[in-house]
Amino acid sequence: MADKKPRIVIVGAGFGGVKLARLFAGEDVEVTLVDRHNFHLFQPLLYQVSTAVLSTDEIAYPIRTFFRDNKNVKFFMAKAQGVDQNRKVLLTNHGEIPYDYLVLSAGATTNFFGMDRVEKNSFGMKTLQEAIHIRNHVLHMFERADKREDDETERRRMLTFVVVGGGPTGIEEAGAISELIGIQKKEFHQLDFNEVSIKLIEATPNVLPMMAPNLRDYTVEVLRRKGVDVMLDTQVVDYDGNTLKLKDGSEIPTKTVIWAAGVKAVPFIANCGSEVDRAGRIVVNEKLQVKGSNTVFAIGDCAHFQHGTERPLPTVAPVATQQAKTAFDNIMKLIRGENDLETFHYKDLGAMATIGRGKAVVNRTKINPQMTGFIAWCAWMFVHLIRLAGAHANVTVAIKWTWNLLSGTRLGRIITNIEL
Amino acid sequence: MADKKPRIVIVGAGFGGVKLARLFAGEDVEVTLVDRHNFHLFQPLLYQVSTAVLSTDEIAYPIRTFFRDNKNVKFFMAKAQGVDQNRKVLLTNHGEIPYDYLVLSAGATTNFFGMDRVEKNSFGMKTLQEAIHIRNHVLHMFERADKREDDETERRRMLTFVVVGGGPTGIEEAGAISELIGIQKKEFHQLDFNEVSIKLIEATPNVLPMMAPNLRDYTVEVLRRKGVDVMLDTQVVDYDGNTLKLKDGSEIPTKTVIWAAGVKAVPFIANCGSEVDRAGRIVVNEKLQVKGSNTVFAIGDCAHFQHGTERPLPTVAPVATQQAKTAFDNIMKLIRGENDLETFHYKDLGAMATIGRGKAVVNRTKINPQMTGFIAWCAWMFVHLIRLAGAHANVTVAIKWTWNLLSGTRLGRIITNIEL
Repeated sequence: MADKKPRIVIVGAGFGGVKLARLFAGEDVEVTLVDRHNFHLFQPLLYQVSTAVLSTDEIAYPIRTFFRDNKNVKFFMAKAQGVDQNRKVLLTNHGEIPYDYLVLSAGATTNFFGMDRVEKNSFGMKTLQEAIHIRNHVLHMFERADKREDDETERRRMLTFVVVGGGPTGIEEAGAISELIGIQKKEFHQLDFNEVSIKLIEATPNVLPMMAPNLRDYTVEVLRRKGVDVMLDTQVVDYDGNTLKLKDGSEIPTKTVIWAAGVKAVPFIANCGSEVDRAGRIVVNEKLQVKGSNTVFAIGDCAHFQHGTERPLPTVAPVATQQAKTAFDNIMKLIRGENDLETFHYKDLGAMATIGRGKAVVNRTKINPQMTGFIAWCAWMFVHLIRLAGAHANVTVAIKWTWNLLSGTRLGRIITNIEL
Repeated sequence: MADKKPRIVIVGAGFGGVKLARLFAGEDVEVTLVDRHNFHLFQPLLYQVSTAVLSTDEIAYPIRTFFRDNKNVKFFMAKAQGVDQNRKVLLTNHGEIPYDYLVLSAGATTNFFGMDRVEKNSFGMKTLQEAIHIRNHVLHMFERADKREDDETERRRMLTFVVVGGGPTGIEEAGAISELIGIQKKEFHQLDFNEVSIKLIEATPNVLPMMAPNLRDYTVEVLRRKGVDVMLDTQVVDYDGNTLKLKDGSEIPTKTVIWAAGVKAVPFIANCGSEVDRAGRIVVNEKLQVKGSNTVFAIGDCAHFQHGTERPLPTVAPVATQQAKTAFDNIMKLIRGENDLETFHYKDLGAMATIGRGKAVVNRTKINPQMTGFIAWCAWMFVHLIRLAGAHANVTVAIKWTWNLLSGTRLGRIITNIEL
């Protein structure tokens, strides 16, 4: 084995996977990073592409560019399909990849909780394609409604936009759409904007569960001032593409339902030969190894990790990046033949969410300083700008955000598919 | 009639159509601008989107934003299908639009000269969708070739990129692809780049017919130095998606043929009830009226205009914008009941083309100062930046071009469709 380098295979180039590959890049190992896309997606800003604030390439970064100078990191563009733990190979649609150590960082997908018709007719918010589809569809609804002078019912149906889910994604999407409507108002001289409405539906009594109660109230208040109809304690039961049905029997005529109400692990995780939880996430021990394996690790949104009896960790970037560090340390220990593996401890850095242009909420759970309003928005902007991967991206993004704040227009409002 | 405003209908929001609508916006008329897209496309930079230099929204500008403050200009997103000159209505897939004066500025599409199989298997270079498809496909070819360690023939087929047409579009596309290859080289550590090739095929003995001979030679020389295999006097006869067949019987195995070898008017022009030429362009008199009509005008790429016995005007932006001014003046005269219509005279402003990063050729035909190399490239950059419609676009574009020139990377290299 002396002359043969350990083969590390990483599935998924999200925050966890890229961090991990960068750590291994400096070591005497062979890394293969597998993803079905050729880019790393900065998911926290996906809602800005879906609402025409940013361009796709400002939140999507070519994976190979991260590893331009790392000859020991190989990128393999393929769809992971499963793991054969006995033969120690990853199965993909472009063949098998043998590994000595495997890390699953494949992330999450939208969870429609088995409501197939809702899944078929509403938009997810997890991939770049979905964000582009939302942008194209929402803009297209305005163009189509503009031609329906005659039919108010159809017009209102086209101009009613529903976001389901009161987490950060739902909040940010609803806020951004309400502002997009304000911009459209300046350019659709024939439309009566009293017919346009945006609704945020949340099944529980609260938005932003991870935040302090006063921040939740502040968020709802800001959204309502923005004209968002916030509907709490409201559950969706069905959607056929024209009418959204709620549990209390009432209906909302709409052509647009954006689903940000839940996530689950990507389906392939179920084919990795270890135990998964109800959300399809693979269960890991405190060393981040999957059950019954010494060489297969899992991190981030696709992993189920519990500190003792607490509830499993949230599906957020900091969990993935912190776990990447621990997985790296433990795999290096195994390579060196050491067995005192590290135990993962999550350091909660708090939470933040924008409520559209110039407003946000920040909640740090340890020492508890809260921020709201413009100052919180600046903090949010700063944190996201420095984390943006693209070298020039954060410059152009900064320009666009400033421009957007001052001028209140969005030049990204183009429909790139032709469905007339 | 006194209280009823004249209804001007303009088909196509290209350079000519937008210029025309802006001129009419200041008059006491009702303007309806019809386009099947909701954006104005800055076509001269389309090749930069197809080669991952720029984002889509940097060359696509929302049409409604031009007319935000002009309540008398209405945008109608629809596909024009024909004209009924007797009933004076424009036919679209969203119903009829009555007009008092109609201007056809619908532009051009790719001309495959009846070679259906070539059309089916190669890429056009006229729409934003086509540019995105080219970008996705070219980048995808590298990813797929990277997985074919075993099969050199298939690898070379995937890594051979052919551009057909030695006009400005073909020159710029070939130059930009050759640079894209140079960037890919830094990130595909396993690929042997001796297997990568880029060919420019031109049927005539010369590239850039509109330029002086010495500039043509310079262009070919620069392209060859960039590694572009320039094939003059070479005619394409067939392409099945795998093998490009030439008139001399030879074949080029390739998965990528980009067709920039000819244009024709958009098909709908044939349904406008007037005479069209072999390229499907509608024939106009010296006042820019279509044959047999007093109220229907045509300008730009879809119009056939001849100064006496000269060859018809080229399909370039300056022709369209200059004709827009004359069409505007003549329609205003008709509205005022004047009959001394203006005769159109084309003022040739010369031609320019980039040959990739930092190099270009500029040819002004009147007083004949030529420019080549970096200085010409700066002139090209300046002209295109000031003409870019988007308010922030030219800032972000300037940043990207500078960044691109200095760092030689392109962060736009993302594959936005998932075909694995």
